[in-house]
Amino acid sequence: MNRLFIFLCCLAPSLAAPGDEGLWLFNQPPRRQLLERYHFDATDAWLRHLQKASIRFNSGGSGSFISRDGLLISNHHVGADALQKLSSEKKDYLKNGFYARTRAGEIKCLDLELNVLESIEDVTARVNAAVPAEADPAAAFAARRSVIAAIEKESLEQTGLRSDVVTLWQGGAYHLYRYKRYTDVRLVFAPEQQMAFYGGDPDNFEFPRCDLDICIFRAYENGQPARIDDFLHFSPQGPRDGDLVLVSGNPGRTSRLLTVAELEELRDTALPFRLESLKWRESLLDSWSARGEENARRAKDALFGVKNARKLFDGELAGLLDPSLPAAKTAAESDFKARLAGRPDGADALAAFDKIAAASKILGGQFVKYSLIEGAQGFNSETFRLARVLLRAAEERPKPNGQRLREFSDSGRASLELALLSDKPIYADLETLTLADSLAFLACRLGADDPLVQRVLNGKPPPARAAELIHGSKVRQSAFRRQLYEGGAAAVDAARDPMIELARAVDAKARALRKTFEEQTEVKSQAHAALARARNALDGNAGYPDATFTLRMAFGTVQGIRETGLETPPMTTFASLYAKAEEMKGRPPFNLTPLWTARKTSVNMKTPLDFISTADIIGGNSGSPVVDRAGDFVGIIFDGNLQSLSWDYAFSDAEGRAVSVDSAAILEALEHVYRAKLLVSEILTGKAGQRDRL
Amino acid sequence: MNRLFIFLCCLAPSLAAPGDEGLWLFNQPPRRQLLERYHFDATDAWLRHLQKASIRFNSGGSGSFISRDGLLISNHHVGADALQKLSSEKKDYLKNGFYARTRAGEIKCLDLELNVLESIEDVTARVNAAVPAEADPAAAFAARRSVIAAIEKESLEQTGLRSDVVTLWQGGAYHLYRYKRYTDVRLVFAPEQQMAFYGGDPDNFEFPRCDLDICIFRAYENGQPARIDDFLHFSPQGPRDGDLVLVSGNPGRTSRLLTVAELEELRDTALPFRLESLKWRESLLDSWSARGEENARRAKDALFGVKNARKLFDGELAGLLDPSLPAAKTAAESDFKARLAGRPDGADALAAFDKIAAASKILGGQFVKYSLIEGAQGFNSETFRLARVLLRAAEERPKPNGQRLREFSDSGRASLELALLSDKPIYADLETLTLADSLAFLACRLGADDPLVQRVLNGKPPPARAAELIHGSKVRQSAFRRQLYEGGAAAVDAARDPMIELARAVDAKARALRKTFEEQTEVKSQAHAALARARNALDGNAGYPDATFTLRMAFGTVQGIRETGLETPPMTTFASLYAKAEEMKGRPPFNLTPLWTARKTSVNMKTPLDFISTADIIGGNSGSPVVDRAGDFVGIIFDGNLQSLSWDYAFSDAEGRAVSVDSAAILEALEHVYRAKLLVSEILTGKAGQRDRL
Repeated sequence: MNRLFIFLCCLAPSLAAPGDEGLWLFNQPPRRQLLERYHFDATDAWLRHLQKASIRFNSGGSGSFISRDGLLISNHHVGADALQKLSSEKKDYLKNGFYARTRAGEIKCLDLELNVLESIEDVTARVNAAVPAEADPAAAFAARRSVIAAIEKESLEQTGLRSDVVTLWQGGAYHLYRYKRYTDVRLVFAPEQQMAFYGGDPDNFEFPRCDLDICIFRAYENGQPARIDDFLHFSPQGPRDGDLVLVSGNPGRTSRLLTVAELEELRDTALPFRLESLKWRESLLDSWSARGEENARRAKDALFGVKNARKLFDGELAGLLDPSLPAAKTAAESDFKARLAGRPDGADALAAFDKIAAASKILGGQFVKYSLIEGAQGFNSETFRLARVLLRAAEERPKPNGQRLREFSDSGRASLELALLSDKPIYADLETLTLADSLAFLACRLGADDPLVQRVLNGKPPPARAAELIHGSKVRQSAFRRQLYEGGAAAVDAARDPMIELARAVDAKARALRKTFEEQTEVKSQAHAALARARNALDGNAGYPDATFTLRMAFGTVQGIRETGLETPPMTTFASLYAKAEEMKGRPPFNLTPLWTARKTSVNMKTPLDFISTADIIGGNSGSPVVDRAGDFVGIIFDGNLQSLSWDYAFSDAEGRAVSVDSAAILEALEHVYRAKLLVSEILTGKAGQRDRL
Repeated sequence: MNRLFIFLCCLAPSLAAPGDEGLWLFNQPPRRQLLERYHFDATDAWLRHLQKASIRFNSGGSGSFISRDGLLISNHHVGADALQKLSSEKKDYLKNGFYARTRAGEIKCLDLELNVLESIEDVTARVNAAVPAEADPAAAFAARRSVIAAIEKESLEQTGLRSDVVTLWQGGAYHLYRYKRYTDVRLVFAPEQQMAFYGGDPDNFEFPRCDLDICIFRAYENGQPARIDDFLHFSPQGPRDGDLVLVSGNPGRTSRLLTVAELEELRDTALPFRLESLKWRESLLDSWSARGEENARRAKDALFGVKNARKLFDGELAGLLDPSLPAAKTAAESDFKARLAGRPDGADALAAFDKIAAASKILGGQFVKYSLIEGAQGFNSETFRLARVLLRAAEERPKPNGQRLREFSDSGRASLELALLSDKPIYADLETLTLADSLAFLACRLGADDPLVQRVLNGKPPPARAAELIHGSKVRQSAFRRQLYEGGAAAVDAARDPMIELARAVDAKARALRKTFEEQTEVKSQAHAALARARNALDGNAGYPDATFTLRMAFGTVQGIRETGLETPPMTTFASLYAKAEEMKGRPPFNLTPLWTARKTSVNMKTPLDFISTADIIGGNSGSPVVDRAGDFVGIIFDGNLQSLSWDYAFSDAEGRAVSVDSAAILEALEHVYRAKLLVSEILTGKAGQRDRL
């Protein structure tokens, strides 16, 4: 349990028991807490089974295996990226849903990579030993990058597994994660997006909710369904109010261990800029989507992502603007500093606060430029992003492995190529639209007279420049990308592709920004490592690190919300869904699809649909399995409520809740709405036997 | 013809004839141009009749009388403010439309003020004489404010007419405009918003268009329909392709005479901030509106305004980011400077450029703070705006007339009170929403640690602070406002209303920002006056000043657009509307209302609906009558196309067009869709006789 948690308990005095905080490492699980609080013994075997049944979606999200024949489940909004890429003007799987009634009907996703965590190894000592104590930030960063690349490559060569060194505790520890990769992943079932995301943006991050946010795939190996030993048994009932539930997934990023200086930088620089950029894009995509159905289809997944992030960051900003949060953080920091004073290791830790503050200031000062140029938000288009990968791959690949930009290291090569050479559709009209808009945004933020802006616009207004770049570039063709990628610098130079030339024209500036970013992050890493050492010396090595899009475990209970005078029960049912549609008179986004309208009389209205729990989650946990004490699948995380949005900075279960689809709802809908009986049978038996005979 | 125009002709060499540029003053009409180019003699009587039939909507827009019994027409989107205020959850006139089939059924608008221009008097000499030559900007501004207030008050007392001194040529001249005011204005007819704004935001600023953007009112005096001598006869046919058309209306603001330094400040500071602020609000109102029908109704007019302005400023920004525009302006400015060099009056004018650049820099430096604090964008709510008027009225009214903030001068008192004491509905939920969002925006822009932000938030997160302010304030009650307004400072102080206290807490800062704004605007006015003198000396007093939301005349021809390979005809018909609805499968915003669907077989599909012309217009011209040589009403301006958006900075009729509803469409729809036969009869005969007998 970390100190922040103890402190926050005092902030929420109405709670009788402390909250169920924690995004726990699988190699440092909360065994004691589960025993003490829930009399539950999470054995090694129990944990190992859950770990190996859990899946990371490399596109951003989580999932789990639910049959020994490779069947796996995640959220619809996690699968949406794959659905969008498989869709066309004629076949809109994102909107209309999909069900493969035969094995042969399962459709291979274009560039989806799944990872299953096989092992974790602590490599902190080796990483730190490679960094000279007196090295300046640039040298220290280079040394650290080099040793990490070497560890990863070594592991890949030895095991054949994807090998990532993960930075934990903001630099306090380095663990090597080894993953089994699945890249032949086929779509089995998706509901209509309207039902998966019922209530749309208005209901996003809210509860009560009535969403069937699921998507079912199957992993293949060598052209056959993958044989999975560790898959989750599916509970037909789902959990009851008050039940202990456990969550296994890949929370993306939290900022709970940040210092006050880092939080202030987030609040005053990073979040406002991110929100501006998102609202700018939302307005554009909304109005373009309204112009026609095919526009709306093309922009759908991007628009969902933008609206989702906008609402998320709005909530996070509201959290940081609540003076009680910075006040609590400041008090905790003062208290920590007071305890450090006079200790032999105290000076290092106290100095670390100043180093972090200084680095934050430098990073904050270049944040906007960094986001626009190195983050490519000023050139918002898939064409630019791919063009830059081609340009940089040609420059980086001839370098020694340890000296390359991280994304070009040998250990990440297979994943990079999967994404780069994908046959996903890229629409010239949408690309031109987003590029033109982001060029205008770039000019707004840097000023039209900025030399880089002038170089980028090349004497033309943004719409004309965008059209010229997009239509003049061949980067959208995967064969062209393959040719340039394999041909290296000579091929890239010879192509004179206008988008690659744009990437080249801004690359010196982009790399300079990145260099500062890397060096100052190195400064912060070393300082956070000092803080972690001091914390461990004071309180023992007991907590959990901030989220890093790696596998974590969380736990909590199914629990409603008691606000001033208002009680929200922990579950909705199918009846809630139909009642809501009636109350809103079917007005979008509260309309039902024709199928759900037609099957109204077929479903059991009392079946639970969605439920909330106090389990600690964050973005990236989407699709995480929710299991009971037996390790059975009782639900799937798909959202947190508005009050959970500040969990990025501090957990509190006073009103914050994780939102899941109930396992009972999944069976009810598959059987009585979609009439997918053989899929239900595979889920219930864990075996695919019968489906083939259809 | 001003120099800019001549220059821009060179930029668009494909045009055989120069464009029909000009927002002409009624006391300096383009008589010569009309004679030379169109052999049309705009006689004094012709002009006077058009002037007196023209109407300014004080809420922002234009209109014209179309019967001797006070019947008048404007755009639906100009009337929308009045329609929104008259609507409630049960009667949604904005959405459903309205038609008073009897005189008694006409509904009085809550706070609508119409102005009809009676006379113009040049008072430049008197204004300038009152400003000492060597006064510093603060003293000069005070002296100018004082003499202007005196002139207005004197005129009001002598004539009983609303009297406004208007600053023309950015300070080059001062004219006294006298208006007859109508404040008893009743709603007669409005179509459904869906048909008035068919195609919604996607089709806004586009052509082809299929909108019936009209709204019909009646002016009353002493409880009876106003007797109008100068009203426009209605042409049943509308204009033909190539016809000369003339427009009389109130263009709000153009920036064509701004110097390059001022344009750069607009491009790099003002426009980016306005766009950010608008996109921020659009995202908020869109997502709140999607939550329910009543939300959507409450936010409808505000959301329209935000989307409209966002699309407008996006277009303007695109115009300013087109390097050809600044390049042309820079070249014109250099040329002007070269011609000035060596002339006796040249030094003054040359120095003026530097003065304007320096003042622009100061204004640009405080633009964001000014907009947030004095512009109240950081406190976005009607409650705050009204609270500030109450606070300031109590402080300003005891001062001598000439020393008050301009909006509290004696001559403007009646209009101020009409707006302040209106019984318009103000919704606490929407107020809390917009206030909370704008408080977060304020914190983002100024930083959460800014002392003013801390004072405003008062230790609470934005949503909680907004709820406390809105629900704690009585300012939403008009009786309370009347009591405080009449009670003066003692009553305001005693009320301890939390929103008034917030306005008080930021007022010192707000007034300081305004003082700088006024002083630097004074510096710019004097400098622009020097430029105007120099221009007149070089080229004669021949052009027209930038728009100032006062009555102007424009002219042009009905004309399609020829782009590269693509020809857009100048007119759409009722057939175009029904074809579009079919093509878009009735998907909003391209759906038809039930009435228009039902009456499809009753209308003549060949009737013209909307047309475009080369007449020079800008926002504020909405609702302007379009007349033919006979002075007959042939259409009504409601939009400009995307290419016209840069007309704010420079006119070009290469592709820019004004968009109007055809007079024939108005008659066709009233007769065959709405079956408003007696209204049609009044419009065609100019007399209301029969309607009463219904």
